[in-house]
Amino acid sequence: MEPSQEYMYAHVSIDCAIFGFDGNELNILLIEKEGTAAQKLPGSLIYQMEDTDSAAGRVLCELTGIRKMSLRQFRCFSSPDRAMDPDDVAWLEKTYGRPVGRLITIAYLSLCRINRTLSAAARRKAAHWCPVSDLPAMPFDHNRIAEEALCEIRQWTESEPAMLFELLPVKFTMAELRALYEAIYLRRFDIRNFCKKIARIPYIVRLDEKQTDVAHRAAHYYKFDRIAYNQLRQSM
Amino acid sequence: MEPSQEYMYAHVSIDCAIFGFDGNELNILLIEKEGTAAQKLPGSLIYQMEDTDSAAGRVLCELTGIRKMSLRQFRCFSSPDRAMDPDDVAWLEKTYGRPVGRLITIAYLSLCRINRTLSAAARRKAAHWCPVSDLPAMPFDHNRIAEEALCEIRQWTESEPAMLFELLPVKFTMAELRALYEAIYLRRFDIRNFCKKIARIPYIVRLDEKQTDVAHRAAHYYKFDRIAYNQLRQSM
Repeated sequence: MEPSQEYMYAHVSIDCAIFGFDGNELNILLIEKEGTAAQKLPGSLIYQMEDTDSAAGRVLCELTGIRKMSLRQFRCFSSPDRAMDPDDVAWLEKTYGRPVGRLITIAYLSLCRINRTLSAAARRKAAHWCPVSDLPAMPFDHNRIAEEALCEIRQWTESEPAMLFELLPVKFTMAELRALYEAIYLRRFDIRNFCKKIARIPYIVRLDEKQTDVAHRAAHYYKFDRIAYNQLRQSM
Repeated sequence: MEPSQEYMYAHVSIDCAIFGFDGNELNILLIEKEGTAAQKLPGSLIYQMEDTDSAAGRVLCELTGIRKMSLRQFRCFSSPDRAMDPDDVAWLEKTYGRPVGRLITIAYLSLCRINRTLSAAARRKAAHWCPVSDLPAMPFDHNRIAEEALCEIRQWTESEPAMLFELLPVKFTMAELRALYEAIYLRRFDIRNFCKKIARIPYIVRLDEKQTDVAHRAAHYYKFDRIAYNQLRQSM
C-alpha cells in the first residue's frame, strides 16, 4: 500500500466556537494557548471512549467553567494542513506529551447572551470574550473555524430568526435590535431602511410603551410575538 | 494514565445518506455489505491525507458510480458502541485487512430526484434504492444515521422549503406535491387540509393550465414562484 493510500488514523479533538452578544458587539470566547501569549478557541483532544457530544460539554466546562450550555455540533475540520505549523505541532506534542500526528477536530457552536454568571465562571478559568471584529491570529485553523461558525450563525439568523430574540431583553428598542443585526453581520444598517424592513415583519410588534429616564428622545419598545412567528412559519 | 483517560486515536470513515424521490416514495441509496447478504449505507474508511469533504465525493463515486452530487456534511457519529457488534468488527477487519479498533464516521447527506442517469450509474455498481419506509436492519449505526438524516431532511423542509421544488417537475399538481410531503414525513396528509394549507403559501402559484389526457378529472398545475419566495424570506 502506497503511503498516500494508508487509512486515516487520527487523534480527534473538540473545538468550541461560543458566541456571546453583550448588547453591543458579538464576541467569541477564547482561552490562552497554554504556556504562550497566543489565544485560541477552547478545545482539547478527547478520550478514547468518549462520544464527541459529551466530550464537547466536558472540554468546555474544564477549560472555561461554563456548564450546561447548549452546544450544537456544526462541522468536522480535517484538512491535512490544519496541524502542520511547526510551532503548533511542537506545542501539541509538549502539551499532550506524545507525538500527535494526524489530527481532526469536531467543532461545536453556541450563541448566547453574555451575563454575569457566564462571565464570572469564565474569568476564573482565564477565558475571555473577544470581539469577532477584532480576532487575533490563532493557532491551527481556529480562525477558519471561527469564520465558518459566524457564517453558520448568519444562516441561523435567516432560517430560524426566533433565536435572535433570546439575545435581547423581552422589551427592546429598534436601536437594540439593529445593534444585534450589525453585530452579527459586521456591517452598518441604514437606520431608515432597517426600520422599514422591521415594520414589514409581522412577529415584531410595537408596544405602546416607551423608554423612560433617557436623555435622548424616548424610543418605542417592541416585543417578539411567538404566536405570529409560528403562524408565519406555517405559511412557509 | 488510566485506560479511560487515553486520548482517542481512531480510524475515520465517511458514510453517505443519499435520499432520492421517485415521484411516489422517498428512497435511500444502499450497497451490499461486501461478501454478505446485508445492506449498508455507502461508506468506507478514508485515507490518511484526505479531507473528509473530498473523501466523501470519492467514496460515493467509487461505491455507487455517482459523480458530482452535492453532499452536505451533517454529523459526526462517534459513540463507542457503534462498531462493537462482533460480526461488524470481524467484517471490518477482513475487509480492510487490519485491526480497526475505534472508528468514528462523518456522515454526509444529499437529497435528489431519482433520474435515469443516476439509476444507471448506481446499477452498474450494485447500489440500489430502498424505500425509507422499509429499511432493513443495517450494520454499525447505519439505521441511526439514516433516521437522523431523515430528521435533518425534515428540518430543511421547514427552514428551506425552496429545495422541495427541485424534486418536482416545473409544473406539478397538488397530488404530486402532497406525495412529496407524505414521502418525507412518512404519514398521510388529509387532502382537504393540505390544499387549504398550500393555498395560504404565496409562492406556490396555481396556473390556468390543467392536466390533459388523464382518465380522472384533470387537475390544475401549480408552479414554484421564486420571486415571491424570496420576498417572503425577506419578511422572516
